[in-house]
Amino acid sequence: MKKIINEPDHYLKEMLEGIYIAHKDMVTCTDDDLQCLVAKHKKEGKVGIATGGGSGHLPLFLGYVGEGMLDGCCVGDVFQSPSADQMLAVTKEIDSGAGVLYIYGNYNGDIFNFDMAAEMADMEEDIRVETVLGADDVASAGPSAPGEKSTRRGVAGIFFVFKCAGAAADKMMDLDNVKRIADKANANVRTMGVALTPCVVPRVGKAGFSIGEDEMEIGMGIHGETGIRRGKIEPADQIVDEMLNQIVADLPYESGDEVAVLVNGLGATTLDEQYIVTRRIDKVLAEKGISVHRYYVGEYATALEMAGFSISLLKLDDELKEMLDTDAKTPFFRQ
Amino acid sequence: MKKIINEPDHYLKEMLEGIYIAHKDMVTCTDDDLQCLVAKHKKEGKVGIATGGGSGHLPLFLGYVGEGMLDGCCVGDVFQSPSADQMLAVTKEIDSGAGVLYIYGNYNGDIFNFDMAAEMADMEEDIRVETVLGADDVASAGPSAPGEKSTRRGVAGIFFVFKCAGAAADKMMDLDNVKRIADKANANVRTMGVALTPCVVPRVGKAGFSIGEDEMEIGMGIHGETGIRRGKIEPADQIVDEMLNQIVADLPYESGDEVAVLVNGLGATTLDEQYIVTRRIDKVLAEKGISVHRYYVGEYATALEMAGFSISLLKLDDELKEMLDTDAKTPFFRQ
Repeated sequence: MKKIINEPDHYLKEMLEGIYIAHKDMVTCTDDDLQCLVAKHKKEGKVGIATGGGSGHLPLFLGYVGEGMLDGCCVGDVFQSPSADQMLAVTKEIDSGAGVLYIYGNYNGDIFNFDMAAEMADMEEDIRVETVLGADDVASAGPSAPGEKSTRRGVAGIFFVFKCAGAAADKMMDLDNVKRIADKANANVRTMGVALTPCVVPRVGKAGFSIGEDEMEIGMGIHGETGIRRGKIEPADQIVDEMLNQIVADLPYESGDEVAVLVNGLGATTLDEQYIVTRRIDKVLAEKGISVHRYYVGEYATALEMAGFSISLLKLDDELKEMLDTDAKTPFFRQ
Repeated sequence: MKKIINEPDHYLKEMLEGIYIAHKDMVTCTDDDLQCLVAKHKKEGKVGIATGGGSGHLPLFLGYVGEGMLDGCCVGDVFQSPSADQMLAVTKEIDSGAGVLYIYGNYNGDIFNFDMAAEMADMEEDIRVETVLGADDVASAGPSAPGEKSTRRGVAGIFFVFKCAGAAADKMMDLDNVKRIADKANANVRTMGVALTPCVVPRVGKAGFSIGEDEMEIGMGIHGETGIRRGKIEPADQIVDEMLNQIVADLPYESGDEVAVLVNGLGATTLDEQYIVTRRIDKVLAEKGISVHRYYVGEYATALEMAGFSISLLKLDDELKEMLDTDAKTPFFRQ
């Protein structure tokens, strides 16, 4: 395990301490719990937006807490859900009377804990909580239910849901409308990834799976979940074509559509490669008559030091475009 | 070689095409040469600032071209200098009568080409060019000349020189003053890195050096230049202590000093690890009586997919602090 860490048992605590030191102007913790992170920026009467999930995906989730995006976040250990009590603490801190929207990825542990937190918030604190489950991954749709979204994992495309819902809340829309916009973004985003190398959970100390020196796996999840096809590494253009064709067919995205594109590095893949991929995406979408309003390129949702990348498309209408284009200021994302 | 690329010979061109597609609102090329990149944002009468060097270090150098930082940049192939003619083309494009400042790393190929470009700009175009050579690397100071800065390589600390000089030019200071501030930032910044894995130049197709599965090399350069010590990987805190002690002793930074800190990932090292490092830096500097005005954490100057990180300190006075704190808006850096 080639990592710059101390005791694996201190990994989460030490990482979080570093975040609070580096970004003390923007974020703080609540309930004296480093795993419960909230924005310093407050806007009275605004709908609060919270997310949460396992660590190991920076800048997801912590990095999007700030002005114009999320208000709070709780994180668990690497690839582990935080607890219901932690999510409740964040919920209480960020509610200012207009209710709270949870936006997080479609994973069982998170659903179990955050549903419980939502129930406690309602029963004990009289805070109305609504939930949007990020489920953008095309690869995990499942062969038996191609039209069914609920088996799909939430991956990098959740960034678009954060951005659009965050903008809606910042415009002082009410909870119903913030949820409506988050639902719309979520329904219009699709993602597919490819992995070249495994990652190592610090407490485990060895790779979660093995993959040949000349192999890639298309559709692999951000915790190393099995993908849809393993094979020899192909040229970048061929990889993009395979992924993009499946993404486009899934919604489907059609000629005349306008989209935003996120090219997301999973950890160890260079920006150089991400731009080589961007170039091909632009060409393929142009051929399909799909125009690109805006590109985002970089590491937005990682899987520790995994090599690989994902492509996310968000189909836009005028409302989503307006939400996407507003300013935001968080530790990791500025626009 | 686990990379998502097409033909290695097309790597540079395809990467640059991707950059122009993703950031078409901010950057364009000049002289019909993709390797000559200039900001779309222009400010009449402002001193122009140009940088340049080999590719493979994104977001260095291209990523800092924009408002409040650099005006132009030319890049060569991976780890190779661009030509004098290319730098001249950028120089002509960004000069608006107030002269041009070159800021680039202390590497022989770049010096040879950019000195020639400066001479041509003066002789043929009557453009005054001044130069500041980034030379912040403590590890390459050389044992025979510990006080001599000119043998030192330019590494991640050049970001601070870009930021301070960029702010000075944006405030419409004249070339003498922009150079004075760049010189001051350069004289007050020191960096040291550590590498855990090698990187692969696409045309070469194999690692530039080998290093054991349990080894690290302190002081390694961003092209894989030999460092000052190779040994077993140690806990993060111990690695930070060794690097920071050498950085602090070099300038030296003293009790009562105020600094900015850059924790820079070299490519494959996670943000998690960079924050674990940040936490320790904060503790050690506090013990030394050195206060931190601002942290920057992330990938600012990479070595392709090398695992490792560097620490840079910039000693601040009121003027540098003012320059550091101004806004900037480039493809990779917003403040």
